[in-house]
Amino acid sequence: MRILLLVLVLGLAAGSGASDQPTMSMQFNLMPMPSNVQPGTGALPISASFPVAIDGYREPRLQRAVERFSRDLSRRTGLFIGVKIVDASKATLVIHAERASKPVQDFGEDEGYVLDVGASGAKLTAQNPLGVIHGLQTFLQLVAITPSGFAAPAVHIEDAPRFPWRGLTIDVSRHFIYPDTLRRNIDAMAVVKMNVLHLHLSDDQGFRVESKEFPKLQEMGSDGKFYTQTEMRDLIAYASDRGIRVLPEFDMPGHSTSWFVGYPELASAAGPYQIERRWGIFDPAMDPSRESTYKFLDKFISEMAELFPDHYFHIGGDEVNGKQWDANPKIQEFMHAHKLKSDQELQQYFTLQVQKIVSKHHKEMVGWDEILEPGMPKDIVIQSWRGQESLAEAARQGYRGILSSGYYLDGMAPASQHYVVDPMANADATLTPEQQKLILGGEACMWAEFISDENIDSRIWPRAAAVAERLWSAQSVRDADSMYRRLDAVSVQLEELGLTHRSSTEVMLARMAGAGDIAALRLLADAVQPASITIREREAESAGGIQTSDIPLDRMVDAVAPESEVARRFSDDVNQLAASNSQDAAAKSRIRARLVLWRDNDGQLEALLQNSFLLKELSPVSQKLAALAAVGLQALDFIDNGRTAPESWHNEQSAMIQQAEKPTADLILAVAPAVQKLVDASASGTPRQ
Amino acid sequence: MRILLLVLVLGLAAGSGASDQPTMSMQFNLMPMPSNVQPGTGALPISASFPVAIDGYREPRLQRAVERFSRDLSRRTGLFIGVKIVDASKATLVIHAERASKPVQDFGEDEGYVLDVGASGAKLTAQNPLGVIHGLQTFLQLVAITPSGFAAPAVHIEDAPRFPWRGLTIDVSRHFIYPDTLRRNIDAMAVVKMNVLHLHLSDDQGFRVESKEFPKLQEMGSDGKFYTQTEMRDLIAYASDRGIRVLPEFDMPGHSTSWFVGYPELASAAGPYQIERRWGIFDPAMDPSRESTYKFLDKFISEMAELFPDHYFHIGGDEVNGKQWDANPKIQEFMHAHKLKSDQELQQYFTLQVQKIVSKHHKEMVGWDEILEPGMPKDIVIQSWRGQESLAEAARQGYRGILSSGYYLDGMAPASQHYVVDPMANADATLTPEQQKLILGGEACMWAEFISDENIDSRIWPRAAAVAERLWSAQSVRDADSMYRRLDAVSVQLEELGLTHRSSTEVMLARMAGAGDIAALRLLADAVQPASITIREREAESAGGIQTSDIPLDRMVDAVAPESEVARRFSDDVNQLAASNSQDAAAKSRIRARLVLWRDNDGQLEALLQNSFLLKELSPVSQKLAALAAVGLQALDFIDNGRTAPESWHNEQSAMIQQAEKPTADLILAVAPAVQKLVDASASGTPRQ
Repeated sequence: MRILLLVLVLGLAAGSGASDQPTMSMQFNLMPMPSNVQPGTGALPISASFPVAIDGYREPRLQRAVERFSRDLSRRTGLFIGVKIVDASKATLVIHAERASKPVQDFGEDEGYVLDVGASGAKLTAQNPLGVIHGLQTFLQLVAITPSGFAAPAVHIEDAPRFPWRGLTIDVSRHFIYPDTLRRNIDAMAVVKMNVLHLHLSDDQGFRVESKEFPKLQEMGSDGKFYTQTEMRDLIAYASDRGIRVLPEFDMPGHSTSWFVGYPELASAAGPYQIERRWGIFDPAMDPSRESTYKFLDKFISEMAELFPDHYFHIGGDEVNGKQWDANPKIQEFMHAHKLKSDQELQQYFTLQVQKIVSKHHKEMVGWDEILEPGMPKDIVIQSWRGQESLAEAARQGYRGILSSGYYLDGMAPASQHYVVDPMANADATLTPEQQKLILGGEACMWAEFISDENIDSRIWPRAAAVAERLWSAQSVRDADSMYRRLDAVSVQLEELGLTHRSSTEVMLARMAGAGDIAALRLLADAVQPASITIREREAESAGGIQTSDIPLDRMVDAVAPESEVARRFSDDVNQLAASNSQDAAAKSRIRARLVLWRDNDGQLEALLQNSFLLKELSPVSQKLAALAAVGLQALDFIDNGRTAPESWHNEQSAMIQQAEKPTADLILAVAPAVQKLVDASASGTPRQ
Repeated sequence: MRILLLVLVLGLAAGSGASDQPTMSMQFNLMPMPSNVQPGTGALPISASFPVAIDGYREPRLQRAVERFSRDLSRRTGLFIGVKIVDASKATLVIHAERASKPVQDFGEDEGYVLDVGASGAKLTAQNPLGVIHGLQTFLQLVAITPSGFAAPAVHIEDAPRFPWRGLTIDVSRHFIYPDTLRRNIDAMAVVKMNVLHLHLSDDQGFRVESKEFPKLQEMGSDGKFYTQTEMRDLIAYASDRGIRVLPEFDMPGHSTSWFVGYPELASAAGPYQIERRWGIFDPAMDPSRESTYKFLDKFISEMAELFPDHYFHIGGDEVNGKQWDANPKIQEFMHAHKLKSDQELQQYFTLQVQKIVSKHHKEMVGWDEILEPGMPKDIVIQSWRGQESLAEAARQGYRGILSSGYYLDGMAPASQHYVVDPMANADATLTPEQQKLILGGEACMWAEFISDENIDSRIWPRAAAVAERLWSAQSVRDADSMYRRLDAVSVQLEELGLTHRSSTEVMLARMAGAGDIAALRLLADAVQPASITIREREAESAGGIQTSDIPLDRMVDAVAPESEVARRFSDDVNQLAASNSQDAAAKSRIRARLVLWRDNDGQLEALLQNSFLLKELSPVSQKLAALAAVGLQALDFIDNGRTAPESWHNEQSAMIQQAEKPTADLILAVAPAVQKLVDASASGTPRQ
């Protein structure tokens, strides 16, 4: 495999007349990185006339894919590209699929493709439409601006995914996510070649899909926020057009309070039940001892198995605390009669019954680690929140698995942290080749305790693209700098498509401020990051507050991106300055300009902060930023004057910075570490004690 | 009528416990301004529990309106507001409609409503669902942030529109606009209570709707960019849910080249025809002399009359140059035989035939000024691009009319300019009350020569909201400062809903730059505005270029907002400084900070500009901005030092500023006039010669 992070200088003869040939100095901003990229000579200029041929196998989905491609190419370039499907001899891009993919998309189908781009045209070939759909995305990512126009560099790409299951779990129960928002996220998944949208459709806090068999599920369990069956069918069709399966999850026997609001007879303790508003693990659980529970589930799963065409059906199965079981004499009796010695064995009994129902309705069952118990048939799939070793152990027993541990996006960890998590870890050393094949891939997880329909894009993107690359690209693709450079490009591409991971911050800041000029607020927002979810929960607890699903997510911590781009660029400048032995004048000037803005911002912001109940908490954050900036400027003065900062000054400032790094208003001053580096540099590189 | 632009200070006793009552100092940011607003005492706090009752008349559309309202209220506040429809006794908001509106929405239906907000609840009453839909929008605009939470101030509002026809024409022919983009714009229209979306569906440059009778219309006349009938039905239903009619326009007998690509036999000269790519007025026109033309139109209009339920059908009728008619002997013969003495009379003949067809299919005909000729029945409606006098003259003859002259958004004029254009002008002095009633309202027009799917939101919004207010609110509502203040609030509200009039600029800048930090580019973008369309066309002509529909709209002029908010704020600061006799220190400090940023920006931008063919043209613009800023800083120094700038300096700088005000790269430095004011102030108020 040849990884191309190098800059390719593609010199092209300048043409004459109106359409000059682009002379290109171009980087490949492909993400996920393909298996094999061989750069060619020249580039294909993109113009408004971009006819496409569908050669070989044809189906309406391919036609629609070309229509979408035309619009997406317009978005990438601003060109008015008409949908023009022509014969291969007249096409700029020829698409060739050998045959149909399966009627219902399955994992393990051939998703590979070969893309050839030359100076006068391109050819995309694949075994089936899935590969075509991925290859079109690669083409779109190749397109770049040059000094003379938009163009795709000449290249030969052979590509196929490392793992067949590359998913994104979205929890739509804790907070409801509207169908249009899900569609945006499906668009984004398609860009980075993910192929499973796993919807966590029910939990204690909400039941989110219409059941016609049991309408009280959504009527009483959703606050009126659920997907109608029509909406869900549309969504599944939308995903399918983009090569993405929709995997439904109905969590049972625990995490199921919302079912019991309408159907308390399912529970292991008498009702009535209310939709749970708090976060955590709760007692309510289905009653595994009653035949009526399984009759209900049989009818329900039958209905949902028809609504969701995917071959897989996720039954959750995680985190049952067993308290309702322990307290119910009839259940205890049942356990005794069936020789079930523990709650774990009781859950195992339940899961086996449910597995039979799922199987009866022609689906294979998926569940969290907990469902893996002796006696389970081998056709189940384990989704692991426990880690790679849990997955490897399942594989040793002959079970298929996908990794989610390490891919929890709600933790607010940087992309680089998720990026290094590999589903195989060291499993490849301890598993036989056959066992290795049982590790199907993974899913990034967007748990929704602190997620709303408004900020979900910014919580998922662009970070999930790093996970998508881990699951598609070779294990050896792991350079974080390259990943971040390409992540920036993907981020721009996603905003072109209508994702709101950047623009939602603007909207939320404007709302916080009420009205008027928010430039000063934006400057502060760009310099901070949300504290980790652990810190946020701990802070809330220590303040005596109970976190509930009703608490609005409209504070600064909810609005700003999980990773500050400004902080990253500032840090890059500081590193560049350090690497130049403090000589790089351009870096120094950028650093100074930034620090001056930060230092002077607090004065402009203060009045605004007092007008809004949402901004008041930001006063100390703004002051800390100003203080950090002042220290940074002092450090820069030492450097500029060629003086070494005294040790006492260094120690004093380092202590201040350390203090400033502590979360305030659940926010981290993301720029603090770089300021520390500056201070260290001014003291001749003394690191903080 | 009481217009409330004053600041209302609503003192509320602070409550105890967790949910403090908001103490409010609140402005009414309502747009369009209602007929009658009587502020009350206190405010209604908005919380996650916001049950709504539908009292009186019920229909599914009202239920859907409440569901949308719940989501919109969530967007306004960040609160998680469930859809909760309850009995009136338990509701925070009670909605009451007396009866149904007409099955197909018509103009002139009662759109009024009464909204009462008190400290513990609100009531919205209307004759029919149209009034409810408008009243819900008013409620959403009332919601504001306060130091203690979100709230709606207590108020009694009685409201009804001044004109029954408040439209927006979108030209989807010159450049195609996708259905999802139209849906966003419908959302925005609903916010400002517009009620007609007029789609200019065919013109020389494209035929945009599927005809099953004549499929070559879209197959050969659209570059593959058209609305399927299913998409159009969905769009009409979407609009209808929001109280908005969809009026189709098929321009004939001129502006019709795109019809002739597939059906050359309709034209007055032999084909073949190609889709027209240039802008302007072209020769091709339908042949009014052949019976087959009317047979075609009868079939076509029959099909479209069914697809579009609206009672009105727009046949265009503008700008026929008659050249094809003059050159066709058979047509000349026909004219002679029918005693038609001029092309005008021939068009009149054509229009009368078409009117009969339209009428046969149970529609009333709408057309541009040109269709008004002797013999026309009185049930037609004139859309005037010629002006108020043309409209008044039609009214005198007993014809109904709507104004579009003065509301052409493509001209890039400021909102304030459209705002002063009144459909009545002085007509109310010269028309009888009955004649006045014939002036139905107006339509803002978004012609699409320089509009793409990507930037259309920013070309329409927020400026169209000023036109919407002109058409809804009393004639006496005309304070531009108040309008702009409320326009800013509407602009934020529209971004909450997903409009992209702000975020599209970001996306386009990122694309122009290719990659990396675009802060410097954004700073330049914020300081400029597009030159008027007249200047843009003149510049293109003098450069020898032919403007066509293929030329991408991806330059800075296409990306920046028609009105620079930054320039407006800067100008406000300069005015404030002048008003304070140069004493206002805060204004001075803001002005200086801004000028320093502009002065220093050029250096940071220069490298970026050379990497992209789209940015190269901005070098002189950036340099002019830097020069203006330098002059502004000198002026500020004179002011700060208490010195009067010498006359020679004043003259020299004024000449430079005058030079800088000339368009470059089709951009205007929107900040130049304010810099001139600073220079004048530094020379003791000497205005520029």
